Amino acid sequence: MDAISGAIDRKRRAGSAASGNGRVALVGAGPGDPDLLTLRAARRISEADAIVYDHLVGREILDLARRDAKLIYVGKERDNHTLPQEQINALLIRLAHAGSMVVRLKGGDPFIFGRGGEEIEALADAGIAFEVVPGVTAASGASCYAGIPLTHRDHAQTCLFVTGHLKQGGCDLDWDALVRPKQTVVIYMGLGQLGEIAKRMIAQGMRADMPVAVIEDATRASQRVVRATLETVAEAVKDAGLNPPALIVVGTVVNLNQRLAWFAGRTATAADAL
Amino acid sequence: MDAISGAIDRKRRAGSAASGNGRVALVGAGPGDPDLLTLRAARRISEADAIVYDHLVGREILDLARRDAKLIYVGKERDNHTLPQEQINALLIRLAHAGSMVVRLKGGDPFIFGRGGEEIEALADAGIAFEVVPGVTAASGASCYAGIPLTHRDHAQTCLFVTGHLKQGGCDLDWDALVRPKQTVVIYMGLGQLGEIAKRMIAQGMRADMPVAVIEDATRASQRVVRATLETVAEAVKDAGLNPPALIVVGTVVNLNQRLAWFAGRTATAADAL
Repeated sequence: MDAISGAIDRKRRAGSAASGNGRVALVGAGPGDPDLLTLRAARRISEADAIVYDHLVGREILDLARRDAKLIYVGKERDNHTLPQEQINALLIRLAHAGSMVVRLKGGDPFIFGRGGEEIEALADAGIAFEVVPGVTAASGASCYAGIPLTHRDHAQTCLFVTGHLKQGGCDLDWDALVRPKQTVVIYMGLGQLGEIAKRMIAQGMRADMPVAVIEDATRASQRVVRATLETVAEAVKDAGLNPPALIVVGTVVNLNQRLAWFAGRTATAADAL
Repeated sequence: MDAISGAIDRKRRAGSAASGNGRVALVGAGPGDPDLLTLRAARRISEADAIVYDHLVGREILDLARRDAKLIYVGKERDNHTLPQEQINALLIRLAHAGSMVVRLKGGDPFIFGRGGEEIEALADAGIAFEVVPGVTAASGASCYAGIPLTHRDHAQTCLFVTGHLKQGGCDLDWDALVRPKQTVVIYMGLGQLGEIAKRMIAQGMRADMPVAVIEDATRASQRVVRATLETVAEAVKDAGLNPPALIVVGTVVNLNQRLAWFAGRTATAADAL
């Protein structure tokens, strides 16, 4: 980033902040590796007066903030907030009304399982200026770093994103939609329900030896990949002791991981294996 | 980027290049707006000896390359290459064997409808070192810039990515998978087949007044959004004269565009409406 234009921008912003015209940028922080922030996300974070962030946003990313920026933690997990959603919405509105340039920072992409839509609906209703900065979603980060293409001419023509973390703790997925041929299924936040999900997919007719990968801490130096089958994956994940955040990929593309894995993950001393 | 460390990196690279150990970085260029490149993508592009790029990669992104880097154009569209896929694979291998630091640059994310998997399979077989840099996929870029969350508690719990551009020009999608309740469907490269796709979805039982958005030139200053229904969208797109690249979003989330659109697109004088 250009230091001089940054300083000028900051002065300009300070002027608009004084007038009480705050703004909110809803920003996707990407899948984990700070190097996967977009140029705009990095700039918005470095400019912000206040950053309201979730659990999945790492310390290295928050360190890009100005030293005098307010950092406000609001959540444990994407759908299990320390602050209820209504209070997060109210906080963003209050900060913007006070004239702050606010960054609302979420892991991955804010419009894929991030509840970002609900937050900017509240901003729109309150007449607050906002923008949305897309991010690399966890599925892209995990698949690229694990060497598992989500689509591939020989394996999958479609890709379905679902969440295993549903309301009321139940797991009422559309099972028939999950077992289509030539499809890759990516399950966000499904580690706790993995055993049930795998059983239901087999009951719905998917072959028990369908390859499954579970990717813990995707794109970070601590990344681990467990490869198994629908039948064995719950046990394999338990044996390996995987913890959230973890992404589950189901489909024959998973087999490509054997040849295409390039990122060393937890066994590596450096974050970048190239 | 830090100019001094960049220069040092370049010297170090020149040394390794002389030894004949080239490498390939398969890099996602994101949805269009150069500001949506990841930090790593921008760095890899600025370091590359050779960049092998597709049609959807814009001039502003290629301008980040070194003046002495080779820029090699290989494609009209993602699945309609000027060079056949086998020749692209052979080109990447030849450049790497010659000792170059090669960037293979694709629009969006390289593992979502980018055929990136096939290219790195060829590299793996040839024993070439590679890495994969994920990018913001077109669906994320378009949805964030059009104010259409792909998932939303009140509308959609799942999101399906499909391509309208199939082998042999046919359109043999899994129609039943496309008409599930509480799902957003994103169709990549489907503009030419939009009329047929809409008809088939209605025939499969989706309501004719289901909202559809077609987003042309997503995230660029030239972005246009046409909002219609399954029944009217083919006509609306024709009237508006939309051209590829365009992304199609089907689902009730599309209605949120009325309240959440923040990016001015083609009517704006600046690329950033915030």
